[in-house]
Amino acid sequence: MEYNVIFQPSGRRGKVAEGKTLLTASHELGVDIEAPCGAHKVCGKCKVKLETGYFEKFGIDSQADHLSPVSEEEKKILKPEDIANNYRLACATEIKGDVLVFVPEESRKADQVVLDTGKERVFTLDPAVKNYFVEMPAATLEDHRSDLGRLQDALKEQYGLENLSIDYFVLRELPNVIRDGDWKVTATVLYDREIIDVRPGFAEKWYGIGIDVGTTTVAAYLCDMSTGEMLIKDGMMNPQVRYGEDVLSRITYAMMNDDGRDKLHDAIIEGINTLAERMTEKVGLKAEDVTEITLVFNTAMHHCLLNLEPKYMGRSPFAPAISAPFDVKARDLGIKIGKAANIHVLPVEAGFVGPDNVSVLIAEEPYKQDEEIRLIIDIGTNGEIDLGNKNKLLSTSCATGPALEGAQIKFGMRAAPGAIEKLRIDPETKECTYKVIGDDKFYGRGEKSNAKGICGSGIIDMVAEVFKAGIINKTGRFNMKLDTDRIRKDENGKPEYIMVFAEDSGIGKDITVTQGDIRAVQLAKSALYVGCKMLMRRLGVNKIDRVTLAGAFGSFIDKESSLVIGLFPDCDLDKVAAVGNAAGDGAQAALLDKSKRIEARDVAASVEFVETAVEADFQERFAEAMAFPHGLDEFPSIQHILDKIPGYKK
Amino acid sequence: MEYNVIFQPSGRRGKVAEGKTLLTASHELGVDIEAPCGAHKVCGKCKVKLETGYFEKFGIDSQADHLSPVSEEEKKILKPEDIANNYRLACATEIKGDVLVFVPEESRKADQVVLDTGKERVFTLDPAVKNYFVEMPAATLEDHRSDLGRLQDALKEQYGLENLSIDYFVLRELPNVIRDGDWKVTATVLYDREIIDVRPGFAEKWYGIGIDVGTTTVAAYLCDMSTGEMLIKDGMMNPQVRYGEDVLSRITYAMMNDDGRDKLHDAIIEGINTLAERMTEKVGLKAEDVTEITLVFNTAMHHCLLNLEPKYMGRSPFAPAISAPFDVKARDLGIKIGKAANIHVLPVEAGFVGPDNVSVLIAEEPYKQDEEIRLIIDIGTNGEIDLGNKNKLLSTSCATGPALEGAQIKFGMRAAPGAIEKLRIDPETKECTYKVIGDDKFYGRGEKSNAKGICGSGIIDMVAEVFKAGIINKTGRFNMKLDTDRIRKDENGKPEYIMVFAEDSGIGKDITVTQGDIRAVQLAKSALYVGCKMLMRRLGVNKIDRVTLAGAFGSFIDKESSLVIGLFPDCDLDKVAAVGNAAGDGAQAALLDKSKRIEARDVAASVEFVETAVEADFQERFAEAMAFPHGLDEFPSIQHILDKIPGYKK
Repeated sequence: MEYNVIFQPSGRRGKVAEGKTLLTASHELGVDIEAPCGAHKVCGKCKVKLETGYFEKFGIDSQADHLSPVSEEEKKILKPEDIANNYRLACATEIKGDVLVFVPEESRKADQVVLDTGKERVFTLDPAVKNYFVEMPAATLEDHRSDLGRLQDALKEQYGLENLSIDYFVLRELPNVIRDGDWKVTATVLYDREIIDVRPGFAEKWYGIGIDVGTTTVAAYLCDMSTGEMLIKDGMMNPQVRYGEDVLSRITYAMMNDDGRDKLHDAIIEGINTLAERMTEKVGLKAEDVTEITLVFNTAMHHCLLNLEPKYMGRSPFAPAISAPFDVKARDLGIKIGKAANIHVLPVEAGFVGPDNVSVLIAEEPYKQDEEIRLIIDIGTNGEIDLGNKNKLLSTSCATGPALEGAQIKFGMRAAPGAIEKLRIDPETKECTYKVIGDDKFYGRGEKSNAKGICGSGIIDMVAEVFKAGIINKTGRFNMKLDTDRIRKDENGKPEYIMVFAEDSGIGKDITVTQGDIRAVQLAKSALYVGCKMLMRRLGVNKIDRVTLAGAFGSFIDKESSLVIGLFPDCDLDKVAAVGNAAGDGAQAALLDKSKRIEARDVAASVEFVETAVEADFQERFAEAMAFPHGLDEFPSIQHILDKIPGYKK
Repeated sequence: MEYNVIFQPSGRRGKVAEGKTLLTASHELGVDIEAPCGAHKVCGKCKVKLETGYFEKFGIDSQADHLSPVSEEEKKILKPEDIANNYRLACATEIKGDVLVFVPEESRKADQVVLDTGKERVFTLDPAVKNYFVEMPAATLEDHRSDLGRLQDALKEQYGLENLSIDYFVLRELPNVIRDGDWKVTATVLYDREIIDVRPGFAEKWYGIGIDVGTTTVAAYLCDMSTGEMLIKDGMMNPQVRYGEDVLSRITYAMMNDDGRDKLHDAIIEGINTLAERMTEKVGLKAEDVTEITLVFNTAMHHCLLNLEPKYMGRSPFAPAISAPFDVKARDLGIKIGKAANIHVLPVEAGFVGPDNVSVLIAEEPYKQDEEIRLIIDIGTNGEIDLGNKNKLLSTSCATGPALEGAQIKFGMRAAPGAIEKLRIDPETKECTYKVIGDDKFYGRGEKSNAKGICGSGIIDMVAEVFKAGIINKTGRFNMKLDTDRIRKDENGKPEYIMVFAEDSGIGKDITVTQGDIRAVQLAKSALYVGCKMLMRRLGVNKIDRVTLAGAFGSFIDKESSLVIGLFPDCDLDKVAAVGNAAGDGAQAALLDKSKRIEARDVAASVEFVETAVEADFQERFAEAMAFPHGLDEFPSIQHILDKIPGYKK
């Protein structure tokens, strides 16, 4: 006997045999209902509502007795008011007649996840690590299978998972876990291949962290892997900074000291352990609850974190120890999360263009771009640049230095509460207003704020604004003749501009921008600019259609300010977008969708690496690009802004 | 152009194209020549001798100029006298005319290995861990493959190995190893799947240890994996003994103490580390040189060594945590050998019948036995018994106790120098002569020896001899009326027999056998006997055709003595063989021939486990079997011996 079954709101309908469950019917009719416990009547996620009465529109008579009676399991899980309102568990309810069923929003299976760490990105939710709930028959003298054999058999029968191995440390406690769960457990499985956690009974959640390890800053994102939701983000200075500001000085440190490699490794591992503990604690979890971490970084940080011999990374021909993506046990690295947790390392492209750029690429997907030429700049101590589209993609790395991350800047700081993140200067009065992280308003003179320093996005604004206000000229030199008390000479006789006076600041000191700060930014932006131009030359294009600015800044950098200082060649400002930490987003994408790991491997192999710093005219081009916005090139998109700058001539 | 090539002593001959090397020719003609370096002209193993002059018998003219001139590589590797005597490297020598070539014994590839730890056993040499020597092109700016990619490509091109992974700790040092070897390295590969060691240049050797972890004694065998040769064996008391003499008391210890599991684990791991260090040091190696260990043990020791929760092993239904064979990193167990070394654990059958019995089975191969019914007894603190042939195989486990290993025996000791291993008593004079390990002769009264105690094989002799001499009767009770100064009462008033007088012994004390010792042996032999009988009943046979006695004794136990005390049911003594430590041999076989691991998995799954101790008449049968040789059963094979015993009546 078959009956008519209709699922709302999708409207999918069809004939279903008597006695099948609503969950089975939903699979047959192509309706996705959540059932994380594998239809074992324990999770309560597959709640649906029977719509009763004659539905003229659908031509069927849907009645309560067209379903099997409410079962004991449903009474345990559903609230009395749910039952009164005709809610049922789809996995526990059999079809006995025509029915119209409504699937509430929370019961619909999320097969997509929206990352909203900056730019909103939509990915498929299909992680490499997954949970499976199973019930097993208890051991008897007649059924003397081992505990593992029993679990493997159940996972095969109930989910079709074959040839599963188990991590040794999980195996150790398996007998207790199985009996604590009364022969019902949730297994956490990596790549449908290895059991990396087993917990008693039904466990809905499992957790992962995506980490972007920059030369200067580390950004981490803790995700609920069952929903794809990012629960919390956190960051810190890279603790390796004490052994060297840039990658070459760290490689040198590793080479010159017997325990140098270990010290670099231990420092960042300790940092990751701190982040994992801090983040999980804030959301009521433990670090042991984390079963996977994805890691992205430049190739030098890759070697220094993983404790791979970095010596040959620092000298021609710059061969890395490994470029393929790989998986390693957290415990082998000293990372203190789940005992059998996996660390997935994204692939290296070439030289200093590492997994962080691959991560930017899988987040931004320029390899899916049809015609337009896209430029993607990931701003960090090592800047990475990608140029091209689906036909061809080039990439390079630039020694930007840490200035745009707030290091080597007198009042520079990490994007954290108290950091100036936006800044405007009145071209007439030379007065300054600014916005501080953790506060929504702009402050001006005489207004007490929590300002403690300035972070990346503020630094770019700051340089653009002093240039636009005529406080510095196009070569970056201060104009000391302006009528304002904000410009003065510091204790070394060098000019500086006071952004926040001591009495207004959160540190009881004037917060200033110095001539040295301006120079550091000029070196950084020139390196990026020349990198872009050399990729354009190699690709044979003289115009960029679209620019994406990425970086682990607190808030997005201002695209107009970026173009005014000449961070990249001219582009229509409508086609310029700042997207936040795309490398961090890519790390999360690889955590939540295993197909992104395949994309990463493929793009790492196909993108063409260009070694720009060895080009013959590099130094000459670099010198030209030091000026604001540039010594020679035209910037039609911002000509109207440049025209208003007092005393500006190209 | 093709030439006649003949290889001696095999006599294989055929036409080979001009310019091919002698090594290639040997492959084409089915001659096995050693080439561990993969024909890279570095190992010098493929030395062959050109036989010059007209060989009437073979009808060809073999001349020195029928081969390419001696190359620079050959001059480096071969001694001048070798070159003078027409020795060549087969891999470096091209064919230019008809040649007759002699392959010396040392150049012939050994594809078989003979184990001679007790019984001589012949296995194929085809280990799970293998060495591969490769040359790689150096890194250049044009060829920016990673070090690992380069190594993987070379292993694929030169040996057809695909999709190789690498252990993380090996990867860490890979850049240095590759450059130290000047782009030539030897990779050690597990299951042709994972690189677990990489050394600079050509490394011929790699090493493994087979270990049999008994409840009371541990036996270890260090092997040269390139030849299959057992370099050294060593043993020790199981250090877990301090936490309990038998498996149940150890499981109880683990359950009753918070850190009980860890303590048991740590004790045996420390023991294995001591053995690995001691054995490698004795042959001029280091423990790090060992890349694989195979482990066999009973199921309780399996759990206690691996630190798997053993609680449920000690209570019905005795389900183990895992029964499948598995591999785990030595470092995860705390075993200090190669950083990435593998530990292979043989499979569990059921309950207390563990990998040690599987190991005995792959050594003895009763599953290949055609018609005869074979009985295999592995004597240990837990005795394991197998009965059957290729049609059906049964096994069981008996709680023998440690008496037959020298524990719980007043002067019992491990099989080590100073242990009495053979013993004879004159039935007339009741005088005793004995042989001590480390010494070839038999000692008697008045002869000073190094005797310190008595080991397993000596204990069985000793009980058989006191019985045969009428010193004890068939119930095991001492006859105090005999006219000899060797029988007396000890400080507790219990009878004892003096085997070695204080002035003759190596410890300055009388070495005796006590009434308690006799009782301990009776309990042990009765357990084994009843186990055998119950398997016979289950299999439906009343006669055994062939008996194999195995155990980690110093020398082989005396088969006649074993039958006289009634260790097993009657069998023609010609068909009884003592084979030494078959479990240890199986562990080595699994180390040296990976197909033995498949056999182990298959036999573990097919052998039928019988729980004999739960049979209704177990206690009754056990009591009957306490007498010498038995209370009821006939022993026609030794009736002539029994007939001579003073006062013996069945």
